Amino acid sequence: MHVDSDERDRATAAAAQPVGLADIEKAALVVKGAVVETDCDPSRTLSAMLGCEIWLKFENLQFTASFKERGALNRLSALTPEERAAGIIAMSAGNHAQGVAYHASRLGIPATIVVPHGTPFVKMENTRRHGAEVIVEGTTLEEAAACAREHGARRGLTFIHPYDDPLIIAGQGTIGLEMLKAVPDLDTIVVPIGGGGLISGIATAAKAIKPGIEVIGVQARLYPSMYNRIRGSELPMRGDTLAEGIAVKAPGKLTEALVRAHVDDILLVSELEIERAVALLIEIEKTVAEGAGAAGLAAVLGHPQRFRGRKVGIVLCGGNIDSRLLASVLTRELARAGRLAELCIDISDRPGQLARMATLVGESGANIIEVVHQRVFTDLPAKGTQLRMVIETRDRAHLDELLASIRAAGFEAEIISNR
Amino acid sequence: MHVDSDERDRATAAAAQPVGLADIEKAALVVKGAVVETDCDPSRTLSAMLGCEIWLKFENLQFTASFKERGALNRLSALTPEERAAGIIAMSAGNHAQGVAYHASRLGIPATIVVPHGTPFVKMENTRRHGAEVIVEGTTLEEAAACAREHGARRGLTFIHPYDDPLIIAGQGTIGLEMLKAVPDLDTIVVPIGGGGLISGIATAAKAIKPGIEVIGVQARLYPSMYNRIRGSELPMRGDTLAEGIAVKAPGKLTEALVRAHVDDILLVSELEIERAVALLIEIEKTVAEGAGAAGLAAVLGHPQRFRGRKVGIVLCGGNIDSRLLASVLTRELARAGRLAELCIDISDRPGQLARMATLVGESGANIIEVVHQRVFTDLPAKGTQLRMVIETRDRAHLDELLASIRAAGFEAEIISNR
Repeated sequence: MHVDSDERDRATAAAAQPVGLADIEKAALVVKGAVVETDCDPSRTLSAMLGCEIWLKFENLQFTASFKERGALNRLSALTPEERAAGIIAMSAGNHAQGVAYHASRLGIPATIVVPHGTPFVKMENTRRHGAEVIVEGTTLEEAAACAREHGARRGLTFIHPYDDPLIIAGQGTIGLEMLKAVPDLDTIVVPIGGGGLISGIATAAKAIKPGIEVIGVQARLYPSMYNRIRGSELPMRGDTLAEGIAVKAPGKLTEALVRAHVDDILLVSELEIERAVALLIEIEKTVAEGAGAAGLAAVLGHPQRFRGRKVGIVLCGGNIDSRLLASVLTRELARAGRLAELCIDISDRPGQLARMATLVGESGANIIEVVHQRVFTDLPAKGTQLRMVIETRDRAHLDELLASIRAAGFEAEIISNR
Repeated sequence: MHVDSDERDRATAAAAQPVGLADIEKAALVVKGAVVETDCDPSRTLSAMLGCEIWLKFENLQFTASFKERGALNRLSALTPEERAAGIIAMSAGNHAQGVAYHASRLGIPATIVVPHGTPFVKMENTRRHGAEVIVEGTTLEEAAACAREHGARRGLTFIHPYDDPLIIAGQGTIGLEMLKAVPDLDTIVVPIGGGGLISGIATAAKAIKPGIEVIGVQARLYPSMYNRIRGSELPMRGDTLAEGIAVKAPGKLTEALVRAHVDDILLVSELEIERAVALLIEIEKTVAEGAGAAGLAAVLGHPQRFRGRKVGIVLCGGNIDSRLLASVLTRELARAGRLAELCIDISDRPGQLARMATLVGESGANIIEVVHQRVFTDLPAKGTQLRMVIETRDRAHLDELLASIRAAGFEAEIISNR
């Protein structure tokens, strides 16, 4: 990172890079008309909430719901006629697969996508729907990638790398051109980092057009791979992040060089921040972002002072989130807001007690979602029993009011799962 | 409805109506720049799925997430200086409240909104955030409306009706102008009906510009109020519909006349169709529509033959859906798709049985979400017990495969809650 470098150093560094503004401008002509020039709109509500001026770039509204189409199309368009005829191969269980399959099919290029075992059927179907052959091999992404390379070499297929390729990077960089065309006076652009293709392209474009602009990368705290590379740190990489789209253990070599040259800082975001960002985009913007797609907003949520008063462009880079995950994120947010809570109430084990409790809850206007009677694992006397209820309330004040009325009726009650 | 009327009859009927094209064109000038001219985009995936060409009008992306702002602003702009100074009053627990409050505040007009008891705090807060005074009165919408009129008369406030007002209707009609400007060759426009303001305005505009266009209304099967009026039927109105935004028992007088004059048909949609439409808009379009907002798509889902081969514009009229409802709609869709199921398995009550079952499930690649051991209420011998597991599978085929492997291991098992 060249926070302290002067303009000349920066220009020298840029000249030595594998991708420059001219490559990105060329890519813009290639993808024009075949990928959506997505909206870049201000969010008045998020701006008021976060104390800065928020602009959102809706890459989640591409046809395959992510930015990956840009790089894929730019890369595919550069194939020779022989390479096109022979076909291409890629490895991805996610957005790269769909972006490659869709544009290969549009261009009449045979496409093979290798996915690891256990990839949800829906994702394979989405890829097949675009006309790609799907091969299931390997148990991890790394194994599947090795298969894809080996398989491609054997069958003479060109391997399309998901990020560490100058044409892929230049394709993703077209987002930077569009954002600065739409909002020339942006101060900061916030971009999620997985392998680094997206931020490398955007930062290259943005710094060339407007050297004073700040480009901030975002990684999940559970997968700080590029962060470790750049800082020389060794934070652990592990666990199930909601932002699986940026959970990449090995960032690219080209992208690492471009991040060093052009990116001002990398922020890490917690799972809680990512969940809140996904939920806020649903509630306020009425738009669906996947975990990785919401990571940029998560960074501003987690570090509001870092962005205060600035004009901040956030790239919502993808919208492919599993419905079950989305439902669970929304439900957990309700619990945090005090609108869903599990209450534990000690009652004596005799007729009418549950009815009495249900009446108290009903009269308060709250809603009972689940009830469990707990008799065995309690430290109450043998005649006592524990009632656990999942309750929906209007808000935290309503919940507190209900709890007070239960206690006023002479019951011991506490909230056991409400953050 | 004038399905059989000729052009002259139609022109005569239109001339007698309380709202005409000129009123709507005037409204368009009034709201220009202060409400969003929302996108009207084709959906390739929904089109392929439904056998017609689907265009979506994204009124859910207005600032307050519904079309109501258009009518509200048009109505407020017509107030005299004295009326502005005295202020306005409205009754609504939902989108009309926010639309009125937001534009009243923009125009510096004091606004009072009456909401019935039990209105979620979040909705009241959204209305207060726009600077309106919120009064909680009455236990039903009808009682709250009566309070608002009475209160308004006492304090000299102008009552802003949610739909039965020519200026409100003309404001909503601007959506029709925008849709036909964006897609002049639409064959059909599908519009949800609550009180009827939205469809009255859109149909007036559309039929005046393009007499051959078809305008189809949609109501929830649980609240067929305008349908009953027009057809003279007496279908019951009751129950909790997901489309509470169009659950209006008494449509307007003006709107009834306009629907008779300009609307070709009214379709009724089931709750299942509404839920599917909400879920499809999330999964495919990455956009959040409330139940009423998705009712137009629900109508095409429910009557695909009715729209086959046509160019259909659907108004996504609102996006204000409660997070808990949205989460529950998404989860129920997963159950229908065979991705969530509750299994009931008879096991003998001795150590190791749960472990064995969990191993079977784990080896199949499925995920256990919930487990209940049922000992008391079973018709098995006393040594037997029932295990209930909520399981997540990749798809229906995966679920069937798991069930077969459990049975092959010698257990009695069945799916108990999976549609």
